[in-house]
Amino acid sequence: MLADRLLAGDIRAAARLMRMADDREDAVREELKALYPHTGKAHIVGVTGNPGAGKSTLVDMLIRKLRDRGQTVGVVAIDPSSPFTGGAILGDRIRMQRHSEDPGVFIRSLATRGHLGGLTRSTNDVVTILDAMGFDTILIETVGVGQDEVDVVKTAHTAVVVLVPGLGDEIQIMKAGILEIADIFVVNKADRGGAERVLAELQTLQDLMTQASNRTPVPVLKTVAPTNTGIEELAQAILSHRETTRASGGFATREQARLREMVASIVREASTARFAREFALADRDHRLTAALLDRSLSPWQVAEELLSQGK
Amino acid sequence: MLADRLLAGDIRAAARLMRMADDREDAVREELKALYPHTGKAHIVGVTGNPGAGKSTLVDMLIRKLRDRGQTVGVVAIDPSSPFTGGAILGDRIRMQRHSEDPGVFIRSLATRGHLGGLTRSTNDVVTILDAMGFDTILIETVGVGQDEVDVVKTAHTAVVVLVPGLGDEIQIMKAGILEIADIFVVNKADRGGAERVLAELQTLQDLMTQASNRTPVPVLKTVAPTNTGIEELAQAILSHRETTRASGGFATREQARLREMVASIVREASTARFAREFALADRDHRLTAALLDRSLSPWQVAEELLSQGK
Repeated sequence: MLADRLLAGDIRAAARLMRMADDREDAVREELKALYPHTGKAHIVGVTGNPGAGKSTLVDMLIRKLRDRGQTVGVVAIDPSSPFTGGAILGDRIRMQRHSEDPGVFIRSLATRGHLGGLTRSTNDVVTILDAMGFDTILIETVGVGQDEVDVVKTAHTAVVVLVPGLGDEIQIMKAGILEIADIFVVNKADRGGAERVLAELQTLQDLMTQASNRTPVPVLKTVAPTNTGIEELAQAILSHRETTRASGGFATREQARLREMVASIVREASTARFAREFALADRDHRLTAALLDRSLSPWQVAEELLSQGK
Repeated sequence: MLADRLLAGDIRAAARLMRMADDREDAVREELKALYPHTGKAHIVGVTGNPGAGKSTLVDMLIRKLRDRGQTVGVVAIDPSSPFTGGAILGDRIRMQRHSEDPGVFIRSLATRGHLGGLTRSTNDVVTILDAMGFDTILIETVGVGQDEVDVVKTAHTAVVVLVPGLGDEIQIMKAGILEIADIFVVNKADRGGAERVLAELQTLQDLMTQASNRTPVPVLKTVAPTNTGIEELAQAILSHRETTRASGGFATREQARLREMVASIVREASTARFAREFALADRDHRLTAALLDRSLSPWQVAEELLSQGK
């Protein structure tokens, strides 16, 4: 079993499991079940922000800081690139090369082009594998906009939201859904004009959230990733959040939510696959599609029929 | 029934149905079933692009052009704002006021903060309502990044992808997943520096896609929305795409996919709700959560148990 080899320290077995998890969920399920009892030790950190926020460089510098503290680090980079463009993949290769001599670092990229819900599930699978491999910290780097991405970061043990000056108002607004789940705010590229404005906006936002929901304001850090400015403080803030939440019980709440979301993502993907099979079967003479098209049967009637079969 | 009032031309009944669809899917289901036979006449156009691409102004100008041609226009604006920020909502209010004297235009905003799959479903519901109201063209304006948004635009009859110069490479890469589904590319803010570079990148991309998949290159238009530049050409390109696909059978393929996705989104939301109920029931003594936490039971085992109950 690949799981046994992985637990014995075989990196190639781990890499192979990750590739399998990307392609065929059912093929790795028994392996993941075998790995699960060996998980629960890693601290899972979500790092999210718009494209252009400099997340990759930030994560790269953060890896070094955590390594300096003697931690091992696994990374899941959710890569929004298509096969038609090589930019992000290339960036990732450079990072991997930089850390490729270091057995204390493992970086895995995931494409975002899977099925609905599939991204959450495959991210969870890679996190399970990295956790079983024994990495102390697992960083999940993701663009913070889709619902999948929000779900992934929301259930991390520590959620880091990266903002950047000068991308304009609408970009800040867009991130609103994710702003509420931040445990740590980072204003990256803080040497740029407009950094003070972003800091002021964050202050206003935190005031509003505190009033609206008794939420405690979270740390706001300034970083300039390429010059390593503020990264030490970020590493420290993550470790502090880890300690604080483990002491307060906040960690257990987050971990419960994460595990429950794992179950939900497995159920969701299985339900979607089952629906596709059932629809294909019910529509094998194309009469369902024809009835939908000529409006003699509504989508709700078809859905109800399929759901009652699934009962 | 609200559906009857809507079909008799009562705008307030339509607005009320849309609000209900946003909040409680089950409450409007019978209404939507009653409306469905009266749908299928509208041409559905998805307009997608990053925040800052100027989509709202573009859509606003496009509404005017379509009105000049005698068309009525319904708009679904998928609004990524949070209750904590008012920007996007305000922008929308201004637009609504501008067209509020015109019964040939109806604009509806949807929040993006719903459940996974819920956005697709509620967008579909509003499209169904606008279609039954008799609007000739329905514009769906959305930020093109999450899987939900891609699904919505992918199944529109015409997909317009809006790019903009000067947002940097990574932003362009991010949109890659959605670039492949464009029927029309718009380079908005084409008076800005860098427009030629975006056009060249699109040319390269189209060359690659043509080689890879025998895909026919799609129109690339330059617009400057505030000065109304290129909007006439955009309106024309949309109408041409409509005519071409209706003549070629491409339209039927797209409409089949759209209706099938409607069924899928209803099934998905129902399955998610069913899972939540079943998990709560199975975990009422919190033993499932405890077993997940202490790693004695894996998420896959819990999921399999729930799925076998759902059979």
